Amino acid sequence: MSRVAAGPLRPTPTAIGAARPVWFDLEGGFWGDWRRANSTTTLHHGVRWLTDLGYLENFRTAIAGRSEPYYGVHWMDSDLYKVVEAIGWDLAHTPDSELEAFLDEVSELVLALQAPDGYVNSHFQARARDRRWTDFAFGHEMYTGGHLVQAAVAVHRGTGDDRLLGAARRFADHLWDRFGPHGEPRIDGHPGIELALVELFRETGEQRHLELARLFVDRRGHSSLGPGHFGRLYVQDAVPIREATELTGHAVRAAYFAAGATDVAVETGDAELLDRTRLLWDDLVATKTYLTGGIGSRHFHEALGEAYELPPDRAYAESCAAIGLLMWSQRLALATGEARYADLAERVLHNGFAASTSLDRTHFWYQNPLLRRRPGPVPAEDRPVQERDELGTRAPWYDTACCPPNVMRTISSLGWSVATVTADDDTLRIDQLMPGQLRTTLAAGPVELEVRTRYPDQPTVTVRVLDAPADWTLELRLPSWSAAVRTGWWAAGERRAAEPDARGRLAASGLRAGQEVVLEPDLAVRLTAADRRVEAVAGQRAVERGPVVYALEGVDLPEGVDLLDVALAADPAPRVAVEDTLLGGTTAVVVRGTAAGAPRPVWPYGPASDPGTASSDSEDRPGPRPVELRLIPYARWANRGATTLRVWLPRSVPGDDGARPCRT
Amino acid sequence: MSRVAAGPLRPTPTAIGAARPVWFDLEGGFWGDWRRANSTTTLHHGVRWLTDLGYLENFRTAIAGRSEPYYGVHWMDSDLYKVVEAIGWDLAHTPDSELEAFLDEVSELVLALQAPDGYVNSHFQARARDRRWTDFAFGHEMYTGGHLVQAAVAVHRGTGDDRLLGAARRFADHLWDRFGPHGEPRIDGHPGIELALVELFRETGEQRHLELARLFVDRRGHSSLGPGHFGRLYVQDAVPIREATELTGHAVRAAYFAAGATDVAVETGDAELLDRTRLLWDDLVATKTYLTGGIGSRHFHEALGEAYELPPDRAYAESCAAIGLLMWSQRLALATGEARYADLAERVLHNGFAASTSLDRTHFWYQNPLLRRRPGPVPAEDRPVQERDELGTRAPWYDTACCPPNVMRTISSLGWSVATVTADDDTLRIDQLMPGQLRTTLAAGPVELEVRTRYPDQPTVTVRVLDAPADWTLELRLPSWSAAVRTGWWAAGERRAAEPDARGRLAASGLRAGQEVVLEPDLAVRLTAADRRVEAVAGQRAVERGPVVYALEGVDLPEGVDLLDVALAADPAPRVAVEDTLLGGTTAVVVRGTAAGAPRPVWPYGPASDPGTASSDSEDRPGPRPVELRLIPYARWANRGATTLRVWLPRSVPGDDGARPCRT
Repeated sequence: MSRVAAGPLRPTPTAIGAARPVWFDLEGGFWGDWRRANSTTTLHHGVRWLTDLGYLENFRTAIAGRSEPYYGVHWMDSDLYKVVEAIGWDLAHTPDSELEAFLDEVSELVLALQAPDGYVNSHFQARARDRRWTDFAFGHEMYTGGHLVQAAVAVHRGTGDDRLLGAARRFADHLWDRFGPHGEPRIDGHPGIELALVELFRETGEQRHLELARLFVDRRGHSSLGPGHFGRLYVQDAVPIREATELTGHAVRAAYFAAGATDVAVETGDAELLDRTRLLWDDLVATKTYLTGGIGSRHFHEALGEAYELPPDRAYAESCAAIGLLMWSQRLALATGEARYADLAERVLHNGFAASTSLDRTHFWYQNPLLRRRPGPVPAEDRPVQERDELGTRAPWYDTACCPPNVMRTISSLGWSVATVTADDDTLRIDQLMPGQLRTTLAAGPVELEVRTRYPDQPTVTVRVLDAPADWTLELRLPSWSAAVRTGWWAAGERRAAEPDARGRLAASGLRAGQEVVLEPDLAVRLTAADRRVEAVAGQRAVERGPVVYALEGVDLPEGVDLLDVALAADPAPRVAVEDTLLGGTTAVVVRGTAAGAPRPVWPYGPASDPGTASSDSEDRPGPRPVELRLIPYARWANRGATTLRVWLPRSVPGDDGARPCRT
Repeated sequence: MSRVAAGPLRPTPTAIGAARPVWFDLEGGFWGDWRRANSTTTLHHGVRWLTDLGYLENFRTAIAGRSEPYYGVHWMDSDLYKVVEAIGWDLAHTPDSELEAFLDEVSELVLALQAPDGYVNSHFQARARDRRWTDFAFGHEMYTGGHLVQAAVAVHRGTGDDRLLGAARRFADHLWDRFGPHGEPRIDGHPGIELALVELFRETGEQRHLELARLFVDRRGHSSLGPGHFGRLYVQDAVPIREATELTGHAVRAAYFAAGATDVAVETGDAELLDRTRLLWDDLVATKTYLTGGIGSRHFHEALGEAYELPPDRAYAESCAAIGLLMWSQRLALATGEARYADLAERVLHNGFAASTSLDRTHFWYQNPLLRRRPGPVPAEDRPVQERDELGTRAPWYDTACCPPNVMRTISSLGWSVATVTADDDTLRIDQLMPGQLRTTLAAGPVELEVRTRYPDQPTVTVRVLDAPADWTLELRLPSWSAAVRTGWWAAGERRAAEPDARGRLAASGLRAGQEVVLEPDLAVRLTAADRRVEAVAGQRAVERGPVVYALEGVDLPEGVDLLDVALAADPAPRVAVEDTLLGGTTAVVVRGTAAGAPRPVWPYGPASDPGTASSDSEDRPGPRPVELRLIPYARWANRGATTLRVWLPRSVPGDDGARPCRT
């Protein structure tokens, strides 16, 4: 159980919505096992890389007034701070003396480096003293400081240690002096400081942290950063958020900024701004989100594309962007009480986010495409990846290592994203279906419960009440993908209606110790189509089961069959296949497909084959032959070496097996 | 008529293939009108921008030993040289005293700047004297020098003026001394010097220019440039060309390099290298070329994508890449005599290349996508475009202005790409069907002919022989898209067989003055499909007529209909519509379509609509309604203001009108 009372998000009692996350102690299952591996393996992996590569040495260099040795680019500190943040959350539930010692070391370095005016940034202090606060578009100074603040809050909440918190407050005061209401009207090209300042306000009660965050939110969108390297859209500086109708530009920046604006809205009681962020979330989810919950469809500028621009192959879908969307969605869930935010978060968690990390929990994707035509190169184990585009397998570290530490802090604090208590303190909501225990205190008294489930492999989710007050309500989110009629719901020995309320939840009041609620979402395999406007995959089909998106991996194809030559059969007849030895135990899905072993045309365009015939057979192009296709959960791909990948599958439709080969 | 005997390509008599281009005087029609506008308008437009922005001032700055003022990045000179090259070709057929004066001015500046050792580059001489030959991956010094060489050859061939040729020889000698067989084994990150040196060899007879080109070709692919900014693939330095099985990386670089390697192969008699370039061309055309003939499917690194990675929306398809593919294809046509290279060139010319330029011939695309979901911003008229991504209309100039001058030199010399004479001097081949005149001398005596046609608007192409020797052969390319049976072919009063020979051509021998050959390709509208492997557009259809790809432009859609909601009807029933007032006279194609005026789903993925029903009607999604869609030639899009664009159209297929909207 967590020793502490708050995780990454602690809305004040006067915040809009003001539901508060409560700690859910993940135990076993996919997420509990990952949490454990994160504590025992991933965090130590991170500490080792940070130490070996010189992230700490950078601080020593700067403290000594030298400029060498210095490792990496000018936002290196931010990734160190994210690992520290992860350690802060982790120490709250999993003591570890080695991580404590690392935390100690980093804290002392930060304190030693911090300038009297509160400024702290090892790059600018070691290597660019005269360029401090000169490059707002690309300097990342507030962004890096924002991660210091987030780390400081995590360490304070997680361990009680307030050394970093002091540094964070001094840094925030420095920002206030320099860029506050009476200072220069600047913003940072990379958002992140906004949500950090709001949480610092929540931790310290200092109103000016919140006011500065609000200033940064409202200053953005007036082109003060200039076109910079990548244009104004890249840094969300083209349109003020209060006028924006869509998120644009760099996906991670956009999501962090939207999350920070949501924080500002709820803490300042700005319902109009909150509504605007909801509108932007709706637009993002409706038009710029992959089936996997990934966002960012462009490698170019790591950007969100236009509405409905969702190519499977060049999906950038950065792991950090998935995390940013999780952060934002949780904020909106707290503010509104609506289940759909948690619903989307579930999709992101099981797919776009879970894919980020290898099953050994020490290798990470930066990009999460939905189609890979060729196996990419396997990265080295002994040095960070520089050329990160289209790797064959996950890498142990990157030269810009934003993603691995981001995964670490997300998993260390994931227990704070499962359940919440409403503002009136009488309702406990469970938003994510994961095994574990929960203990908290409602208005009427303490409540304790246990969730037992093998979801999403198996449907049954049992919530057993261990302790309860006389008067309280339990709410469970009904996953939106599950047809309501197939959802079972029993409470206190009687079957209740299965219709969700307007917010997408089922509620049970007055449960007593020893009673159980059982939720059984429909885990039938679904064949999913895309709206016609998502033209890149229109007409194709994806396989889903529960919250899990499935994928075909090249390694599972019959010998000699290419991924691009495979289609779903007219009747795919999907069936579930539990594979005990595959990828540590996997629920696979087997579908009927076809493989057209066609020669390569010399020119890939030509007259459409006759739609009236059953196939496009010709001398050059033999008809498709039946194959059985085993699909695995998307998130588990590339754990068996470099291979190919496909989420969206074409169908074997008369007239659509392709063009007839023709002369150039 | 051209005053000179050679254009951009003059293979020596011992080259493989050794067909020689002959000048074809384009007159009237799409291409003749463009050639005229290029002379009277575009070249002057270029001179004005170059002068106003300071491209010449850069030279004066460097000559004076100053570093200021200096305009632009370090490859500015290359674009100046390309305009000079265009002027060189143009003065051969169209005298212009203003352009002559400009050429004079530039020539004197180059001579004045050139260092005693032959080095010349205004950027490095003005602003980075100590960094000369230090950044091979990104310095562009050989690339820039290559354009000096190409300009010098053009000016010498076109006007007889040998001042720039002297400078080019000295620069080439400098390269020989420094990077020749006894110098540093370097290459340039941006190819271009290879083909330039081969042509310089052809112009001067200096064997060492050819030898240096060969060295540059064979040195490439051994990672000598390092990963650089963009990785080894970007600069074609990962795999030696003799081992390569595909072109990769930056599309323009790849095409220039392949063209240069082809030049080296034919002049050194290296049949193995020639075969390798043919294999690479086959692979490029079969797997990485858009229907429009554009290449380069990634904005990221302006790169060729993987095989079959051909998204319509993010097609980069740089205008310069289309030109590079034209240059390479013409080389292979000369070397092999095969019509398919000219066939592909025709497709590029009418689509991917022609789209580059506005109908007023003073505005240019950098990128040539096949789908634009939204109108982009309209660039300013008074300054070069910096943010060139997804503009709404063509721009008058770019900060990196590679494309506009590249278009200019291509049009100025286009008459050299229409017809060739074979090595044995008895066969005249006409590869491109354009109106104009030709006069040359074959082994048996002079031949003169005239081509009359309104192709590709109308099918009839009439070749009238005005003068002919007793014994000669005329060959005409049969366009591959035209069904052979529908091709009429009459010569000397008798109808001849319409089957093309193995090289894709029809031949007629012994034609006499006054006789005519008439070619009538089948201009029926074609509905074209893509091979299944081109998954981004699989199942969709494009409309083609003759060599012209058609496109739907948003401005032609009925009020309130969005481009993404349109589909082709089950029976599109295409018909040709000649529009005299549209875009200066256009042959449009009208097809039947449907428009589904559907509300936007909150989550764009869901259960596929029942494939057994005729549409995906539901309360939320009204059934599609019939609309008539007018398509215009792709190359003419965005001449009526910023709008949307779509080449590949989905079909109204039961079950494929999209997913049913569902809850998030």
